[in-house]
Amino acid sequence: MTGTPQDPGAAGDGLAARSSLPEVVAADGLPARVRIHEVGPRDGLQNEQTVVPVEVKAEFVRRLAAAGLTTVEATSFVHPRWVPQLADAAELYPRLTADPELRGVDLPVLVPNDRGLDRALELGARHVAVFASATESFARANLNRTVAESLAMFEPVASRATAAGARVRGYVSMCFGDPWEGAVPVAQVVRVCRALRDMGCAEISLGDTIGVATPGQVERLLTALGAAGITPDHLAVHFHDTYGQALSNTLTALRHGVTTVDASAGGLGGCPYARSATGNLATEDLLWMLRGLGIETGVDLDRLAATSGWMATRLGRPSPSRTVRALSVPSHKEP
Amino acid sequence: MTGTPQDPGAAGDGLAARSSLPEVVAADGLPARVRIHEVGPRDGLQNEQTVVPVEVKAEFVRRLAAAGLTTVEATSFVHPRWVPQLADAAELYPRLTADPELRGVDLPVLVPNDRGLDRALELGARHVAVFASATESFARANLNRTVAESLAMFEPVASRATAAGARVRGYVSMCFGDPWEGAVPVAQVVRVCRALRDMGCAEISLGDTIGVATPGQVERLLTALGAAGITPDHLAVHFHDTYGQALSNTLTALRHGVTTVDASAGGLGGCPYARSATGNLATEDLLWMLRGLGIETGVDLDRLAATSGWMATRLGRPSPSRTVRALSVPSHKEP
Repeated sequence: MTGTPQDPGAAGDGLAARSSLPEVVAADGLPARVRIHEVGPRDGLQNEQTVVPVEVKAEFVRRLAAAGLTTVEATSFVHPRWVPQLADAAELYPRLTADPELRGVDLPVLVPNDRGLDRALELGARHVAVFASATESFARANLNRTVAESLAMFEPVASRATAAGARVRGYVSMCFGDPWEGAVPVAQVVRVCRALRDMGCAEISLGDTIGVATPGQVERLLTALGAAGITPDHLAVHFHDTYGQALSNTLTALRHGVTTVDASAGGLGGCPYARSATGNLATEDLLWMLRGLGIETGVDLDRLAATSGWMATRLGRPSPSRTVRALSVPSHKEP
Repeated sequence: MTGTPQDPGAAGDGLAARSSLPEVVAADGLPARVRIHEVGPRDGLQNEQTVVPVEVKAEFVRRLAAAGLTTVEATSFVHPRWVPQLADAAELYPRLTADPELRGVDLPVLVPNDRGLDRALELGARHVAVFASATESFARANLNRTVAESLAMFEPVASRATAAGARVRGYVSMCFGDPWEGAVPVAQVVRVCRALRDMGCAEISLGDTIGVATPGQVERLLTALGAAGITPDHLAVHFHDTYGQALSNTLTALRHGVTTVDASAGGLGGCPYARSATGNLATEDLLWMLRGLGIETGVDLDRLAATSGWMATRLGRPSPSRTVRALSVPSHKEP
């Protein structure tokens, strides 16, 4: 270590002190452990303009797992016309399942319909996700179906997956606001969650797809779901940081018993300067808070931030995660 | 309005729906009203590389007040060598106090010592702030003094200001972590806060200067201060968003009774890509949350975001505020 307190510009001190930050101080009413459902390779990369080669994707998943993430949503078996970035799913997925470094890592994939499920199961998927919408407008925009039609499409997918021994996750988009409809009635969200549970989804992920939610909404929805028998142990939260709200909404959900949080390494999932600024909560920003609160995740923040830095270089733009950017600075230098 | 729900790409719908977002849903245990202490013109601009002409600064303050902000920290009467960006304080401040549009707006200024106080009082300041540090390292770096020496310097400033009928605010930097020392003992922060209170500071602003705090720390400090007789009604919180933690820390402080929050329009106060990424909490990101929670501020979010957009153009870089960027998009277009 170089430098002294009288020599505050010395990098050594900053690094030494910083490695002890954030200070760990628990808060009442929060869980002891949180499971992070990492969505970077799927929800992150599907919106990127840059074409990412399949080798780089496989390496990304490997590095995420090496940082300690145990659930890494790997890709999507939708029609390539819908999501060209993930058109290599059938090439990528077998590489992952065959990789000894990824043994024991949960690698869920998105499946929109029977055909997608067949491909996923053939390639060894043990965890699949269907994606419903809480609003008619987004169901129409994303699936070209009504909400009821899309649930009818997912029903056989969920039951066949369950029969095949695969775990099923149900996503619900637009739980807290819709760009065309504005406010979304809670009863509508509860109805869709119930349908997903009844078709066998082991976990339901509540999506704030356009990032507009605030903490009162989170409390209200979790309370309504609890009253409908859908308790926090069957829920995950999936917040977007479009308006900078993702972390305080996540904190609110943790206070209400949720222990599974979706996040995207480096905040991948929409360029912050593009027209559609829909960045996911960055896994690193989440980890900084959880680490400070003494909540266990099993994930190494420095290693994860290094992985996101590596991926940002591949994508040719800085990471939108504030924590990734701050940790890439060799030392603090304050005014 | 153009478009229908079957025509989700139409900009008209997005704008119409969005203006009703965030949905207002209150949460238990939060205050009905929050006062925002806007620091953009001082804490924001002091770190900018671009030279901002005095006319633009005056116009910035005017627009902030027009958006509904009632407390706008205007400038700093420190030696120009320390903060060249604010070297025009003596030129700017009389313009503001003479401006009929700013009548009734509280315009605090920073004063480091007797000489700074004299200049501020001469120019009509009715609200001044001194700036202490919770750590020896930062007191040395920022003021070239020990903590005790700096408090001794502020004591006559505070008592003379109070005698002259001015309100005094005390800032405390590095309350939650220090780049050279790492964790900062709570007792040390309490000691400095007590000294500031005893010298007559009507309000003490708890600064997370390097943005490392997490909610357990916030709870712990507020509890310790309460035990020392320094209650939330005499406190403000000043969080930085370096690691994306500012808003969840602010939410935590509100739950513990704090009702004054420091924030910087557009998140001014450090370039997010610079070595020293120490951005303030963006006033707009704060306002989105408060609006959603139904907490009154008197500030018009759209008008404020437009002001920050205007300032970002003057500074030649996009606003670091996620809300400012999202609101500058004509309509949502979701994948």
